[in-house]
Amino acid sequence: MTPADRTVDVVVAGAGYSGLQTARTLVDAGLDVLVLEARDRVGGRVLTEVTPSGAVVDQGGQWIGPTQDRLQALADEYGVSTFPTYLDGANLEVRDGSVHPFIGLVPTSDRDGSADTVATLLDLDLLAQEVSPTHPWDHPDAGALDRITLAEWVESAADTQTARSLVATAALAVFGCGPEELSLLYVLSYAHSGGSMSSLIRTAGGAQERRFTGGAQQMALRLAERLGDRIVLDAPVVSVSYTDGGTGEPAGVMVTAERRGADDGRSSWRVAARRLVVAMPPAVQGRIAFDPPLPGSREQLVQRAPMGSVTKIHAVYDRPFWRDAGLSGQVVADAGMLRATFDDSPEDGSHGILMGFIAGAVDRSSESDGAAGRQRVCLEELARAFGPEAAEPIEFVEQRWSAEPYSRGGPVAGLGPGVLTACGPSLRMPVGPIHWAGTETASVWSGYIEGALESGERAATEVVATLDGTALNRATGLDESSGQ
Amino acid sequence: MTPADRTVDVVVAGAGYSGLQTARTLVDAGLDVLVLEARDRVGGRVLTEVTPSGAVVDQGGQWIGPTQDRLQALADEYGVSTFPTYLDGANLEVRDGSVHPFIGLVPTSDRDGSADTVATLLDLDLLAQEVSPTHPWDHPDAGALDRITLAEWVESAADTQTARSLVATAALAVFGCGPEELSLLYVLSYAHSGGSMSSLIRTAGGAQERRFTGGAQQMALRLAERLGDRIVLDAPVVSVSYTDGGTGEPAGVMVTAERRGADDGRSSWRVAARRLVVAMPPAVQGRIAFDPPLPGSREQLVQRAPMGSVTKIHAVYDRPFWRDAGLSGQVVADAGMLRATFDDSPEDGSHGILMGFIAGAVDRSSESDGAAGRQRVCLEELARAFGPEAAEPIEFVEQRWSAEPYSRGGPVAGLGPGVLTACGPSLRMPVGPIHWAGTETASVWSGYIEGALESGERAATEVVATLDGTALNRATGLDESSGQ
Repeated sequence: MTPADRTVDVVVAGAGYSGLQTARTLVDAGLDVLVLEARDRVGGRVLTEVTPSGAVVDQGGQWIGPTQDRLQALADEYGVSTFPTYLDGANLEVRDGSVHPFIGLVPTSDRDGSADTVATLLDLDLLAQEVSPTHPWDHPDAGALDRITLAEWVESAADTQTARSLVATAALAVFGCGPEELSLLYVLSYAHSGGSMSSLIRTAGGAQERRFTGGAQQMALRLAERLGDRIVLDAPVVSVSYTDGGTGEPAGVMVTAERRGADDGRSSWRVAARRLVVAMPPAVQGRIAFDPPLPGSREQLVQRAPMGSVTKIHAVYDRPFWRDAGLSGQVVADAGMLRATFDDSPEDGSHGILMGFIAGAVDRSSESDGAAGRQRVCLEELARAFGPEAAEPIEFVEQRWSAEPYSRGGPVAGLGPGVLTACGPSLRMPVGPIHWAGTETASVWSGYIEGALESGERAATEVVATLDGTALNRATGLDESSGQ
Repeated sequence: MTPADRTVDVVVAGAGYSGLQTARTLVDAGLDVLVLEARDRVGGRVLTEVTPSGAVVDQGGQWIGPTQDRLQALADEYGVSTFPTYLDGANLEVRDGSVHPFIGLVPTSDRDGSADTVATLLDLDLLAQEVSPTHPWDHPDAGALDRITLAEWVESAADTQTARSLVATAALAVFGCGPEELSLLYVLSYAHSGGSMSSLIRTAGGAQERRFTGGAQQMALRLAERLGDRIVLDAPVVSVSYTDGGTGEPAGVMVTAERRGADDGRSSWRVAARRLVVAMPPAVQGRIAFDPPLPGSREQLVQRAPMGSVTKIHAVYDRPFWRDAGLSGQVVADAGMLRATFDDSPEDGSHGILMGFIAGAVDRSSESDGAAGRQRVCLEELARAFGPEAAEPIEFVEQRWSAEPYSRGGPVAGLGPGVLTACGPSLRMPVGPIHWAGTETASVWSGYIEGALESGERAATEVVATLDGTALNRATGLDESSGQ
């Protein structure tokens, strides 16, 4: 075996919020940590960019809502302020090609459908309260709940096509998956982890309540500054060999990353560690070769946790003109490319930004349209809702998460029928010296930044617990960094 | 960029039956081909082994049936003979813990259930005839058929629990997936590719009709002999960079494999080629890093094509004692670890072998039982069916396909709801210089050895068509092998 290029206590694979929080917690516990990140940046599915015209756009996760306390604490720590998502005025409902204004969470143009939607959401919320966010497979009816899709459930739970369509829109916006792709048990567990489905889809009082002045990636950048050269960018982990210590030798891992040099040449780089925390979505973890192979149940889980498909678009205007017409910028559509839009203008309204989601099957099929084709359709739809001025943005940007090899989609994994009951327990179960973080493993706000932070704390705590005081690096003198 | 270690016309990634047939077809067309295989053997999901007592066991694919003409031709070519799967005497049905003998395809202890099962199978077969094996998404009701699972369909199509349970057993045996994991559209398309669901589950006249004297891997071994040093074993492909030739430079790939040396050290090995054929299941392909990333729709497909979960067990006895009792060795069970068994004795009956499948959720959860625990339960179940003698085999072997890193499960990919309509066209669509083989891409007998062979021929034909005569290696003098 080639010797290690570096030896640390713990390797963290992935520098999204979950990996950063893992690393920070481990460092605070006195451990020697190295974070290997595949991309040339930190933040994972959270990415703030500045457009040529100076608009700040969050290309990924962007919001904070009530009970997301870890994220709020992090923002406070780094002095990042928040402001309410703009929601003054009327939202717009697009139904059967017509546009109808409405106030509040649920569109109202079809009165029966509106009442039915509220009743259906309530049913979903009540069901979700019964399902554990961490152990949904323990529910007495777990098998039955996991056997059907959200689409199948809503087919019988709702009486109107309007309610079914609105649940589909919610699924697309929340998961990047259509309701026919999602296990009901998974949806219930996921919703409960954030409170309820209603809290997931609410702006005021829900997951979309507030935004970060300057963008949601800032705290990741500050965390990364603090971690300093413990983070190595451009270093995707490609393989991991490990031993669980069963034969008397100490448990440990050898992590091989493929580093890209200045000349674009690649070289393997090996880091030995006592523990590894994999802080990435299961589908991305699935790319890493493990030796010995991971247990079959973990392997099967990883193949059954596909990422949703989502493209986020931002249309930038010189001012938020829709506000003059008493519109909030929020659209809920029953069809088309953009099923949901938001006002993503800066707090001071110095320019106007409409943000929209292309999600699920439409996102996948829109690939053949190309960027120009998607822009054309999106602007047509924005103009239908907000008038001709919407067709003439000064800038239009899109972020296609399914084209990102180190995310493989977004915003989150979408589990289909039968997966949680068959493979769910493997989601967080350590394999020898390997522990799992990532928002998909969170017990609160799974799929959100808050969940990423919680998962990192939990994984780090697991690691610290297995490395008790006497076995710590400092005591055993393992800290022989041979340099990078 | 590091220069290539070797340059060929076409790299084939994977030396299962699809990759071997691809390579053979390409070589016959005069092309310079290199096959990179991750394992230390060829054959993929087909593996024949000899146990210590000298029993020949097929650990993976093993049968040949009517209309599997390519496979028959290959067996003829290499002089491998076949013999009928043993099916004299009564099959056994295990229902609600009791054992009932029956003759024919469908268990009969519950008469209403039996009639209902036949009617349900017929319904499924008729539906399957409407669905194209190659373009199921073109069906006028594709959306609706892809929106529901096989479980949901059978819930309404069948009137009895017996019929539902038998369809579940069929799904587990055919796909290694429970009916709640499978899209109805996928099941219909898959069944049609092999004729009908009935042909898939039949022994006489169906997919399990005959076996190969000496095992099903033999033709793969002979093909590999013929290909000689064009096959490199122990060389998993880890990354591929490619250009589609859009910018005027010729389309081509640079394939990086990780070769394991005699000292267990690993080294990267780079092969340049004009085309690449990826001959492996989508889920295994998903482990390879592509640069530029594959299109999002392909990426999303690959995340949504998980392998079924199956363990094949063989209990070896000194003679096929169940035949004395007038039993065929076939069991169909409504519960338990083994949902289906077969007589896998050699043709001359010189010893007795019972083979069984542990599939789907039970296969995954049985991981925690360990090999000894699984053996104990399997032997209890065999003894319940065939008497106490079955509890005392001279050998017991198991092959857990979900623990095989280069299969990731078996026997085949199981697509859930919404996948085919959303991502199906990406299954076979070339991406620049990259073509896709593997039985999951087959238009006939998808999931079977026959389908693997067909897919290889089709992929090779695609490649040859894009490399027209004037551009062939021989003419352009690219054939500068620099050695391996």
